[in-house]
Amino acid sequence: MRAGIVLSTLGYLVFFIGVSMFVPLAVSLIYDDGDVPAFAVSAAVTIVVGLGLGLGFRGKKTEIKAREGYLIVSASWTAMALFGALPFVLSGAIPDPVDAVFESMSGFTTTGASILSEIESLPHGILFWRSFTHWIGGMGIIVLTVAILPFLGVGGMSLAKAELSGPVTDKLAPRMIETARILWGVYVLLTAVEVVLLCVGGMNLFESLCHTFGTMATGGFSTRNTSIAAFPGRFVQYVIVVFMFIAGTNFTLHFHALRGRVTTYWKSPEFRFYLVSTLAVIAIVMADLVFVRGDGVEAAFRSSSFQTVSILTTTGYATEDFGLWTPLSQFLLVSIMVMGGMAGSTAGGVKVMRLQLLLQHVRLEMKRFLHPAAVLRVRMGDKVVPESIVSMVISFFLLYAILVFLGTVVMTLLGMDMVSGGTAVVACVSNVGPGLGTVGPAANFGHVHPVGKVALTFLMLVGRLEIYTILVIFSRGYWRA
Amino acid sequence: MRAGIVLSTLGYLVFFIGVSMFVPLAVSLIYDDGDVPAFAVSAAVTIVVGLGLGLGFRGKKTEIKAREGYLIVSASWTAMALFGALPFVLSGAIPDPVDAVFESMSGFTTTGASILSEIESLPHGILFWRSFTHWIGGMGIIVLTVAILPFLGVGGMSLAKAELSGPVTDKLAPRMIETARILWGVYVLLTAVEVVLLCVGGMNLFESLCHTFGTMATGGFSTRNTSIAAFPGRFVQYVIVVFMFIAGTNFTLHFHALRGRVTTYWKSPEFRFYLVSTLAVIAIVMADLVFVRGDGVEAAFRSSSFQTVSILTTTGYATEDFGLWTPLSQFLLVSIMVMGGMAGSTAGGVKVMRLQLLLQHVRLEMKRFLHPAAVLRVRMGDKVVPESIVSMVISFFLLYAILVFLGTVVMTLLGMDMVSGGTAVVACVSNVGPGLGTVGPAANFGHVHPVGKVALTFLMLVGRLEIYTILVIFSRGYWRA
Repeated sequence: MRAGIVLSTLGYLVFFIGVSMFVPLAVSLIYDDGDVPAFAVSAAVTIVVGLGLGLGFRGKKTEIKAREGYLIVSASWTAMALFGALPFVLSGAIPDPVDAVFESMSGFTTTGASILSEIESLPHGILFWRSFTHWIGGMGIIVLTVAILPFLGVGGMSLAKAELSGPVTDKLAPRMIETARILWGVYVLLTAVEVVLLCVGGMNLFESLCHTFGTMATGGFSTRNTSIAAFPGRFVQYVIVVFMFIAGTNFTLHFHALRGRVTTYWKSPEFRFYLVSTLAVIAIVMADLVFVRGDGVEAAFRSSSFQTVSILTTTGYATEDFGLWTPLSQFLLVSIMVMGGMAGSTAGGVKVMRLQLLLQHVRLEMKRFLHPAAVLRVRMGDKVVPESIVSMVISFFLLYAILVFLGTVVMTLLGMDMVSGGTAVVACVSNVGPGLGTVGPAANFGHVHPVGKVALTFLMLVGRLEIYTILVIFSRGYWRA
Repeated sequence: MRAGIVLSTLGYLVFFIGVSMFVPLAVSLIYDDGDVPAFAVSAAVTIVVGLGLGLGFRGKKTEIKAREGYLIVSASWTAMALFGALPFVLSGAIPDPVDAVFESMSGFTTTGASILSEIESLPHGILFWRSFTHWIGGMGIIVLTVAILPFLGVGGMSLAKAELSGPVTDKLAPRMIETARILWGVYVLLTAVEVVLLCVGGMNLFESLCHTFGTMATGGFSTRNTSIAAFPGRFVQYVIVVFMFIAGTNFTLHFHALRGRVTTYWKSPEFRFYLVSTLAVIAIVMADLVFVRGDGVEAAFRSSSFQTVSILTTTGYATEDFGLWTPLSQFLLVSIMVMGGMAGSTAGGVKVMRLQLLLQHVRLEMKRFLHPAAVLRVRMGDKVVPESIVSMVISFFLLYAILVFLGTVVMTLLGMDMVSGGTAVVACVSNVGPGLGTVGPAANFGHVHPVGKVALTFLMLVGRLEIYTILVIFSRGYWRA
């Protein structure tokens, strides 16, 4: 482990976060509602620390080893959350440091869980910064899951690599930086389109920017206390549904689609599964709303598609409090939190691809049970998935289950009821945002015990970094070698 | 598939069930409280049908193939539940057939979930039959998991086989029938000891027989409305705790211990894990009762050890309504329902050994992540577990999760809340009995929608037969070949 290279890389990233604070600073200057000093000081501190680390530990240009990569990635996200919390504390919007780091981590990990109960009275700069952390985090996730993690060999993310190097995607630039640039281009383009559409739908520029950030990053922070319910227009709500779904799709597919190969989507087995399961859940929840609650068809479709896509893509926006829906709808929504969106998207959760591999493993074992001698291999489309990846995906899922179990032990130990505690943990590990009960869509995380907030903050980070990246740092073997 | 051999084997088993009804018939004759005709008719019908099938399809003595074995085992348990329900219906104790089959399946699968709210007013013969179905079922499970399933190649149960053929156990008779006889001997001996101890503790013979059946089979049916809370004596409660723990232990270990090799227990990695996790949960729940509820130390230890061991071994007896305990204790108790007892015991659930293999798989994958070239193998003690078994265990666990998911969808669809519906499913698949909420220890399953009762009846069966044995019958490949 070379501390120099870790610290200098970390420094450059912190520097970048400091620079990015100029954007909310500009917003503050425009609206002039009092948080200019907070951003100025935060940016200055962050930039100075970042430059200090970056230049102080600058060394020869060299390859970063996988082992160093895990630490750099984990430390980077932690540093982002810590420095990103400065404006919240300094402006007085969120004076408690634990709360501020929770909110900031929730932003950068694109979770969208908030400790705030009163949002609308906050200054514009702070509101913008909350949403902007989503967007930066989403940008980071795309480059992380598609360009960095595969090369570090993390979990099922080698799958995204396989996707990149496969026949569908062999035109993508092979090198990491080139890949990142292309996908960021897609991300920025889609962001621009959504901003325009939301403005057309009647939102002002500030709100459409903030909500677009939350959509494209599958984050979920809103500028309104009642989330998207504050925008009852059908057009706006459907635009957000469509863009949440887009944000939960592997960005590589969008790149190919933008180059004219629209059939790319349907050729991806992961996309088909993602689309079909989304539609299936929408249909069931919609039937529930029509037959049990007596909604009209359009209203039921809008509510069910919004809530389903919002939860499945781990965005967390709400047009309604689904905590009041039937037990069936509630259970389905909590279940799809676990799945999440596609690999290579900004969504969290276990990811569609991993779930597909797990289901295929079960199917093959049933076959093998009847035909012990048969040679059966897990496949994605027409490609055989190596045993080592299947094994890692299984372990990933079990680790996810272990984290949910341990997290729920902590939450119930702190006095939360089982449903609230359990869904709080799932909502944080999967980077969704709202859970059920006391952390439901109409509630917030402000009342959670500080120890619980720290635990959830950690779980957001672990979930976001595909579990392995960060847990491996806590293993004995990591530091020994 | 040779239908003849399946039907004749099934017939002999049904005949045996008919004969076993003479026992509650005798009880009815002694107490003379009105259910003699019900048992006489049930026994007659069952014996006639059994003999008809057994003799009608009698063929040459021949080896049963694995494929036929699955069907025989699944059909046997189903037939037991159906014929076992006759006395309930005919006596008028449980007039509704769906309810009666639920109760009977719950008995034979040693689940202990009941649709009855008023138990104490039932005639003695019926009460005895409920408990006796546990004992027969437990006997069946021992021979099934230790002697039959391994030879059919079912799931992780090959592990029990490995245990039998391993160095610790090589003195056990190698042939199936011999193995079964030895283990039944242990089962009967332990049953006799517990009956004597419960009589010493102040129970009458009838009650100590019934409760011993429920204990040794990890069943859970009681003769009292308030379960073991009706017997407040410390001695009785501790005796039941100890024997529930014994019943959740691999019976092969008891056999060796009875032959003087008591260290056998500690040499088993599965037993160590079983013991340590039991003690850990007892300690946490006890601390909860002492510090949160303010119980005395002995009372807290008794309550926590009783409830923990009862749930972990999937017995389901209660001395208290743990649905009123803290969220932490409730969550821990629900979690250990999933684990269950040791392989080769009468307990249900995923089984300790499978959980150990899963945890080891995760640990090894973490190591492999850092050292991709390392050769790492899952072990039990000093024996390497074949990859094929690890793969099956993983698939078993995933199937368990899928069943819980689908079961909960059905329960919530029928209007049950998430906690009650979810725990009802877990309590049935794991053959525990009580769940939480509307199916908690102080409640019963009587209010569940008939469709839900049928689903839960099926889940009890699937869980009891180690999932594979029965699910494989529903696969296309099974009938095609």
